Amino acid sequence: MTPSDPDFAARVRDSFARQQVMAFLGATLTRVEPGIVEIELPFRAELTQQHGYFHGGIVATIADSAAGYAAFTLMPAGSSVLSVEYKINMIAPAAGERLRAIGEAVRSGRTLTVCTFRVMVAKDGRETACAVGVETAMCLMDRADRPE
Amino acid sequence: MTPSDPDFAARVRDSFARQQVMAFLGATLTRVEPGIVEIELPFRAELTQQHGYFHGGIVATIADSAAGYAAFTLMPAGSSVLSVEYKINMIAPAAGERLRAIGEAVRSGRTLTVCTFRVMVAKDGRETACAVGVETAMCLMDRADRPE
Amino acid sequence: MTPSDPDFAARVRDSFARQQVMAFLGATLTRVEPGIVEIELPFRAELTQQHGYFHGGIVATIADSAAGYAAFTLMPAGSSVLSVEYKINMIAPAAGERLRAIGEAVRSGRTLTVCTFRVMVAKDGRETACAVGVETAMCLMDRADRPE
Amino acid sequence: MTPSDPDFAARVRDSFARQQVMAFLGATLTRVEPGIVEIELPFRAELTQQHGYFHGGIVATIADSAAGYAAFTLMPAGSSVLSVEYKINMIAPAAGERLRAIGEAVRSGRTLTVCTFRVMVAKDGRETACAVGVETAMCLMDRADRPE
Repeated sequence: MTPSDPDFAARVRDSFARQQVMAFLGATLTRVEPGIVEIELPFRAELTQQHGYFHGGIVATIADSAAGYAAFTLMPAGSSVLSVEYKINMIAPAAGERLRAIGEAVRSGRTLTVCTFRVMVAKDGRETACAVGVETAMCLMDRADRPE
Repeated sequence: MTPSDPDFAARVRDSFARQQVMAFLGATLTRVEPGIVEIELPFRAELTQQHGYFHGGIVATIADSAAGYAAFTLMPAGSSVLSVEYKINMIAPAAGERLRAIGEAVRSGRTLTVCTFRVMVAKDGRETACAVGVETAMCLMDRADRPE
Repeated sequence: MTPSDPDFAARVRDSFARQQVMAFLGATLTRVEPGIVEIELPFRAELTQQHGYFHGGIVATIADSAAGYAAFTLMPAGSSVLSVEYKINMIAPAAGERLRAIGEAVRSGRTLTVCTFRVMVAKDGRETACAVGVETAMCLMDRADRPE
Repeated sequence: MTPSDPDFAARVRDSFARQQVMAFLGATLTRVEPGIVEIELPFRAELTQQHGYFHGGIVATIADSAAGYAAFTLMPAGSSVLSVEYKINMIAPAAGERLRAIGEAVRSGRTLTVCTFRVMVAKDGRETACAVGVETAMCLMDRADRPE
């Protein structure tokens, strides 16, 4: 998959920087390649559910952004990206020091891009998958990727 | 649907209080009935995506908890609840002052409970749906609903 | 939700008649209203899985068409409908004499329409829900709703 | 992933043979390995939607069985498998002479197994992906994998 916009990486980084929730959670963008984006998030007690693990919604939040931005790498300059829907399966407790979400485009169309994602959790230096899913992202040509 | 545990509401409220991420986001539990749970979340700039709206992952975080706790109202005393998977469709921008997620059990089994959910966003005093979805929650009989 | 095409029902019925798989399975279109479509399917041993119930894929096939056509009722004349994705939860064994799938549009946009669906199974004259789900349908303006 | 039942392949083949819908559609089981199952289905006009392609529900039917049986390879002797839920994204028209669904287990638990799947369509001798998805399968220890 070849991005039509040579500046796709800067475009993704700029958009990520405008997602205030990422800084609030402590998430960082660690990889931006054509059709692939990774986001990492260190553990904080503020992000936990009742068992003391990362809350599934937080796992989903970085998975959603990783998948959406994987799609956005392939969209044209001047466009905006929207998550239309996603589905996530929690396959293991998100128990560990750090999450890493990897979004990957599997089909890129003019309007819709489909991405798969997985989220890895690192515990005592060993990574295991804690979530997998599929997301549909939409390309909006008629609006800027920022607040109006 | 009749809860087998007469103290279901206290059990749900205790578990919610242990989800540290809820206080971190500013979410509150506003309704706990047999098979139905609601969670509300006021707008804060820290919760936004690139257009300045609530991030989809944050919408999903309260939807996930509302659905999981709707399931938990029907589970026996001494059990613990786990979100196995969910699917969410973003049907409108989550643009507004306040979110309200409503989770509702549609099938309660011994092991698995299926819930539907919708998330409403209030803008200028008018609520519209911004997300709908389906979640599967699992009842764990062999572990406590708190950190070990 | 008001259809822009006054002939929406005839358009849906024509498209359904072109879905050869519906006649092959024995499914019939039993309701076409703005944003709502129902499809029924009587039991046949040829449609079963290993326990002798309707196969989940067959349940999904009529759910998918019911949801897609519920969306199609709201699309303009001359358009074509495509199922982009769906998610289905099997909430009870599809054991009975007859299935009824109900698709309902919950958000209709220019390009995408989101529908929820449920499938009921009738056994000994009593209907219970056996599946629920959510589907995204896409409106194609540039192609006919028939083979090229 | 190592099956606990050395006769897993025979168990899967027997169960598949009891899914009458597979013979009705013309589907065959073409691969059974630990955690991986493939099902193929040649084109027939009786399986089509309104554009003359394989209906999405038929694509889903073989994907559902491939994923369910991929899970079943890892379940113990004497158990039965149930599809709890799945999600499927149609990433290209299922236009071609033959479908091939590949189900793969990504997490195998005592009760639940999560599988990913993809469906390939062969046209003029070239295979492309037409669908991807994720499925949750459940292991039932207390009932036979056949009609009562």
